[in-house]
Amino acid sequence: MASAPDPAPRVDVVALRQLLDGRYAEVRDLVRSNLTEHAGVLADAETLPRAEYRERVLGLLVAMAQTGQTGMGFPEEYGGGGDLGASIAAFETLAYGDLSLLVKVGVQFGLFGGALLMLGTKRHHDAYLEDLVAGRLLGCFAMTETGHGSNVQALGTTASYDVETGEFVISTPDEASRKDYIGNAALHAQAAVVFAQLDVGGEQHGVHAFVVPIRAHGELLPGVRAEDDGLKLGLNGVDNGRLWFDDVRIPRANLLDRFAEVSPEGRYGSAIDNADRRFFTMLGTLVQGRVCVSGAGINAAKVALTVAIRYAECRRQFTATSPDREELLLDYGLHQRRLLPLLAESYALHFAQEALAARTHDVFSSSTGDEKARRELESRAAGTKALGTWHATRTIQECREACGGAGYLAGSRFAALKADTDVFTTFEGDNHVLLQLVAKGLLTDYAGDFEDLDQLGMVRFVAGQALEVVIERTAAHKLFEAIKDALPGGDDAWDREAGLRDPDYQLAMLRFREEHTLSGVARRLKRGIDEGLDPAVAFSRAQDHVVAAARAHVERLVLEAFATKTADQPEGDVKVALTLLRDLHALAAIERDRGWFMEHGRLAAPRAKAITREVNELCRRIRPLAGDLVAAYGIPDALLPAPDLQQP
Amino acid sequence: MASAPDPAPRVDVVALRQLLDGRYAEVRDLVRSNLTEHAGVLADAETLPRAEYRERVLGLLVAMAQTGQTGMGFPEEYGGGGDLGASIAAFETLAYGDLSLLVKVGVQFGLFGGALLMLGTKRHHDAYLEDLVAGRLLGCFAMTETGHGSNVQALGTTASYDVETGEFVISTPDEASRKDYIGNAALHAQAAVVFAQLDVGGEQHGVHAFVVPIRAHGELLPGVRAEDDGLKLGLNGVDNGRLWFDDVRIPRANLLDRFAEVSPEGRYGSAIDNADRRFFTMLGTLVQGRVCVSGAGINAAKVALTVAIRYAECRRQFTATSPDREELLLDYGLHQRRLLPLLAESYALHFAQEALAARTHDVFSSSTGDEKARRELESRAAGTKALGTWHATRTIQECREACGGAGYLAGSRFAALKADTDVFTTFEGDNHVLLQLVAKGLLTDYAGDFEDLDQLGMVRFVAGQALEVVIERTAAHKLFEAIKDALPGGDDAWDREAGLRDPDYQLAMLRFREEHTLSGVARRLKRGIDEGLDPAVAFSRAQDHVVAAARAHVERLVLEAFATKTADQPEGDVKVALTLLRDLHALAAIERDRGWFMEHGRLAAPRAKAITREVNELCRRIRPLAGDLVAAYGIPDALLPAPDLQQP
Repeated sequence: MASAPDPAPRVDVVALRQLLDGRYAEVRDLVRSNLTEHAGVLADAETLPRAEYRERVLGLLVAMAQTGQTGMGFPEEYGGGGDLGASIAAFETLAYGDLSLLVKVGVQFGLFGGALLMLGTKRHHDAYLEDLVAGRLLGCFAMTETGHGSNVQALGTTASYDVETGEFVISTPDEASRKDYIGNAALHAQAAVVFAQLDVGGEQHGVHAFVVPIRAHGELLPGVRAEDDGLKLGLNGVDNGRLWFDDVRIPRANLLDRFAEVSPEGRYGSAIDNADRRFFTMLGTLVQGRVCVSGAGINAAKVALTVAIRYAECRRQFTATSPDREELLLDYGLHQRRLLPLLAESYALHFAQEALAARTHDVFSSSTGDEKARRELESRAAGTKALGTWHATRTIQECREACGGAGYLAGSRFAALKADTDVFTTFEGDNHVLLQLVAKGLLTDYAGDFEDLDQLGMVRFVAGQALEVVIERTAAHKLFEAIKDALPGGDDAWDREAGLRDPDYQLAMLRFREEHTLSGVARRLKRGIDEGLDPAVAFSRAQDHVVAAARAHVERLVLEAFATKTADQPEGDVKVALTLLRDLHALAAIERDRGWFMEHGRLAAPRAKAITREVNELCRRIRPLAGDLVAAYGIPDALLPAPDLQQP
Repeated sequence: MASAPDPAPRVDVVALRQLLDGRYAEVRDLVRSNLTEHAGVLADAETLPRAEYRERVLGLLVAMAQTGQTGMGFPEEYGGGGDLGASIAAFETLAYGDLSLLVKVGVQFGLFGGALLMLGTKRHHDAYLEDLVAGRLLGCFAMTETGHGSNVQALGTTASYDVETGEFVISTPDEASRKDYIGNAALHAQAAVVFAQLDVGGEQHGVHAFVVPIRAHGELLPGVRAEDDGLKLGLNGVDNGRLWFDDVRIPRANLLDRFAEVSPEGRYGSAIDNADRRFFTMLGTLVQGRVCVSGAGINAAKVALTVAIRYAECRRQFTATSPDREELLLDYGLHQRRLLPLLAESYALHFAQEALAARTHDVFSSSTGDEKARRELESRAAGTKALGTWHATRTIQECREACGGAGYLAGSRFAALKADTDVFTTFEGDNHVLLQLVAKGLLTDYAGDFEDLDQLGMVRFVAGQALEVVIERTAAHKLFEAIKDALPGGDDAWDREAGLRDPDYQLAMLRFREEHTLSGVARRLKRGIDEGLDPAVAFSRAQDHVVAAARAHVERLVLEAFATKTADQPEGDVKVALTLLRDLHALAAIERDRGWFMEHGRLAAPRAKAITREVNELCRRIRPLAGDLVAAYGIPDALLPAPDLQQP
C-alpha cells in the first residue's frame, strides 16, 4: 500500500482494447456477441448431467457455425470466410467462454476440417467442406492411439490397399493401437480422418490420412467399435472416445491425397520422395492447431487475471494503514508481486501470439512454398504453444489462490478454467516434446525434417553434422557483435552500464542467454559423444539443458514481439502503460533466471538486487492501472462473475 | 536413459515403509484397511449425483467412526483413543483415499470436536463428546465469514449477553458477517461452534466461541438460516454452506468457557487479562487443524507421485537407444528431472511432518504450559502447512502432466486430486498469511501475541522493539560461529571447500540464507522507518522479502528434520536411499535459489554449475530405486489405478 499513491495516467481502455484486438476486431466482436448471447452455458456446464451438457455444447457449435464464426478459415466457395487469420482470431476469442465448446469447435473445424482442407484435394473439398462448414457433417481426428501419443510415426493402425476391390482396409492390430482420447468420437462424429500406416502390395509407406465413415443415423457402421473415454478431469462437454477398426473397407478415393496417391493398380506415388519428409510435410500443414491452442491458453489466462484483479480491487482484509478500514488486497506489495508480473506476461504473450498468428496467415496464404519459413513457423508455433499454455496453468492457479475461498466456488469460474485448460499443456503436442522440437530446429538450423523427434534419428543427425555448425555460429565473438553496437560499454560492459529499463539491454540479455545456452548444449553433446558416450545417452543426460535452450529462444521471441509492438505505438498513455508492462515482463524474466546470468558472468550481484527492486517498483507503478489493463481484454461482463465473487 | 544402468541397491520396501509409518504403523494400517474396504467411493465420487455423493461420504464417516479411527484424539472416557499423535496419523493416512471424506472427518472431529474439546470444559465434554465421537452428533465450525477470512479478529457476528434471561443472543448484523464456506453447514450439522464478538452489558470482549444448535430432525431451528455454497471446484462430497443467525438465543452454558466466563449476573472473567492474548491463546489450541492439513497435503502428493512413477516405469515413447523398442519414460533425463526432485521433497516433508506431529502431541500432552514452546509449535505448524500444501499443488500438477492424456482421464485419480487439494493452500490459514505469521515469530523472537497479524499492530510492534534485537541477533559474526567449526575452511571458505553431499554443508547453506534474509528484512524495515516511511508502507514494500525469510526458515527446518532422520538410520540400503534423497532434496533447493546464494557471495559460478550436474547425477542414481521408494508409501492397490492407466 502507498499512503500517497504515485500519480499515474489512467489508460484509455478503448484505445488499448483496439490495439489488442488488432486487425480482426470485428471478428472478435462477433464472437463476444455470440458468447454473450449463450453465456448461460457457463452455468449449464456446472449443473447439467454430462450427457445433456454434451448435447448443449453440440447445439452451440451448430448455432455458432451458422453465424459464420467457425468457418472463417475455409474457402468462400464452401461457405467459409477465406481468411485463416480471422479463423485464428475467432478461436482465440472463443476461449473467453466455455472451453468444452472451444475444444469441440477445434476438433470439428480445426482438426477434422483442417485435415480435409490441408491434406485432401478438390475431390474431398467438394464432397465434404460445405456440409462441414455448416455444421451438418461432424467429424473427428483419429490420430493419437493409446500406445502412441507424442510419437505419431509409430502409430499401429494399418491401411492396406486391396487391388482387387480398389479399397483400403483399415485395421486396429492390437489394443495399443486403438485410437484414443479422440474428441467427437464417442458420440457425434459421422466420419473420422484416420491416420494409419499405409501398406500397398506389402510395401510400407508410412503414416497417411484417410476419411473413414464411422456413423450413419447415429449408429456405428459395421466393423467400427467406439467406446466413451468416460469422465475426464475437464472438458466434459466433449465426447472423447476410443475407436477400433475391424478390417473396415473404404474406397480408394478416401485417401487424402494431396501429398501421395495410390493408383487403381496399386502404384504408390508422391512428389516427396523421402518418407520422413513427406510425413512431416503433411503434419506441418496442420500447424494452425497449435497456433489456436496457444492463443486459447493465453486468453483463458486473461479471464483468470480479470477475475483476480477485479476481486483484489474490491476485497479488503486486515487493517494496515488505517485502524478503521481494512486494506484492499491489491494495495499489498505481496499481492502485486503475485499478480502483476503475470499480467505483464499475458500482454507479452498476447503480442507474441499476434505475431505468430500473422505469420501463420501469411505462410498459408502465400503460394511460395518457402521450406525454411514453414519450419520456422512450426518452431515458433511449438514454442509459443508451450509457453502460452504453461502460462495459463500457472496463472489460473495463482489467480485462484489469490481469490481465497471465494475462488473455490464454482461461480468464480476457476473450477472450469483450471480443469478445462489443464490438458492444453498436453494436447496438440506435449509441451516438453514441443520444446525439444524447437531445440532441434535451433541445433540443426532448421535443416533435416523438422518434426522428426524420434530420439535415435534426431540424435544421430545432430551428432553427425550439426554440432560443429552450432558451435561455430554461436561463438562468443559473433554473439556480441550486434550487442556492442547497440548498447553503451561494448563487449565487456553492456550488461553493467545500460539502463535496466532500456529495451535493448533487456533483449541483449535474453539474446545472450539464448545463444550461450544453445552453444553450451552443442558443446556438451559433442563432448559426450567425443568421449565415447552413446549419443542417445549423451542426449538424455543433457535433456534439461536442451529444453532450457529452447525456452530461452522462445522467451526472447516473446519479448521481441512485445518490445517491437511497444516501440511502434504513438506517444501517449497506452504507450506508457505498455512500456511499464514490457519492463516488468522483461525484468521479472531476468530476475527469475538471475542464477543463470550470474553463473555466466552477465549479472553482478548489486545489479541483480537492483533488478529485484525495480520489479517491485514497477509493480507499484502498474497497480493503479491494473483494472484498466484487464478491462482492455474486453471480456464481456456476462462471462464474468461479480467483482466481489459474492453474487451468484 | 543409460545404456548400462549404474548398479544400485534395491531398497528393502518393508523396512522403509516401517520407517515411514513410524510409531503409529498400526493406526495407519487400520486406516489403510478401512480405505480398502470402501475403495468404491473413489469411483462414486466421479459418478454419483452430488446429493448422493454427500450422503455416501456421510455414511463412510459414520462407518469409520465406529472403527475408532476418527476418535483417537478424544479422551478414552468418551469413547476416544486418548492419543493426539494417533489421531494425526489416522488423518494423514486418510488422505490416500477420497478427500471429501477426509475433509468431512476434519470438520466433524478436528474442527467441531476439537473446538468443543479444547475451548470447552467438562460440562461441554460430558454433554457432547460421546455422541460426537460415535458420529451421532454432527457439527460444524462456524468461524469464517464472507467478509472476514484470514482476519478472524474482525468477525462481525455478535453474541450479546441478556442478563434478564441468562442467555446469549447470536446475531448476523450484515451480509459480510454471514458465516461462509462452512463444512457440514448446508445439510448435516445439528450444532455449530460459532465464533462471535462477545458483548456483555455493552462492553466488548472480542471473539469467543459458542455452541449453537442449528438443526433438529434435519430441520433448521427458528432464527437460523442456511444456504448451500453450491458447486465447488472440488470436495463436492462436503456440504459447505452459509449461516445467518437472527437473534438466536442460547443458554449461558453454551459459551465454551475454558478461557473466559460470563457469570449469571453478567460479569466477564478470564485468567488472561489481555484480550488479544486471550484470543490467540484460544486459537492456538486449535493448531492441530493445520498440522492435519499439512500431513494430508503431503500424503495426497504421494498418491500423485506413485501414479506418475508407476506410469513412467511402464510407458514407452520414442525409440532412443534401440531402433526396435521405445524407451521407458523414466529413463529420460528430463522425466527424471521433473519427478525425482519432487519425490525427494516428499520424503523431506514427510519427516518434517513427523517431527511436527510429534511436537504437537508432546505440547498438548504435557501439562506444562510453556508459552514459547507453543508459539514455536504454532510457527512450525503454519510453515509446514504452507510448504506441504504448495508441494501438493505443484507435485500433483507435474505428475498429471507427466502422465499426458492418460492422466487427464478421471480414472487416473488426478482429476479428484487436483480439484480436492486445491483449497488446501487456502483453508486452515491462507499460505501467504501463514508465512507472514512465521516471519513475525522470527522478527519478534516469539514475543507478543503470535497470531496477531493485524498489519497495523504487528508493524508497530515490530518497528518499535524488535528490529534492533533481530539485527543484533543475526549479526554476521554470530552467524558463522557454528558453521566455521563444523566445516572445513572456516568463516570464509566453508561454502567453497565442503563436499556438496556433506549434510553439514547443505544445512549451513540454508541456515546462512535464513539468518541473512531475516537480518535483511529487519534492516530494510528499520531503514524505511528511519527514513520516515509509514511503517505499514515500509512493511508492504518489503512483504515479498518477509515471506522469503519465512520460507527460508521453514525450508531449513524441513531439511534439518530429514538430515537428522537420515543420520539416525543404521547402515544399510534404507540409509543409502535416504541419503541420496536428502542430497537431491538439499541440492535441488540450493540450485533453485542459486541466484540468491550468488547475490550474497556464498556460491561461486563454477560451484553452482557443479550443483546442477550433481542434481542430474543424483536423479540418475535414484531412478532405479524410484519404484521402491513410492511402494514404501504403502498406498493400498485398491486406491491406485492400473500402472499403465489403461484398465479402468
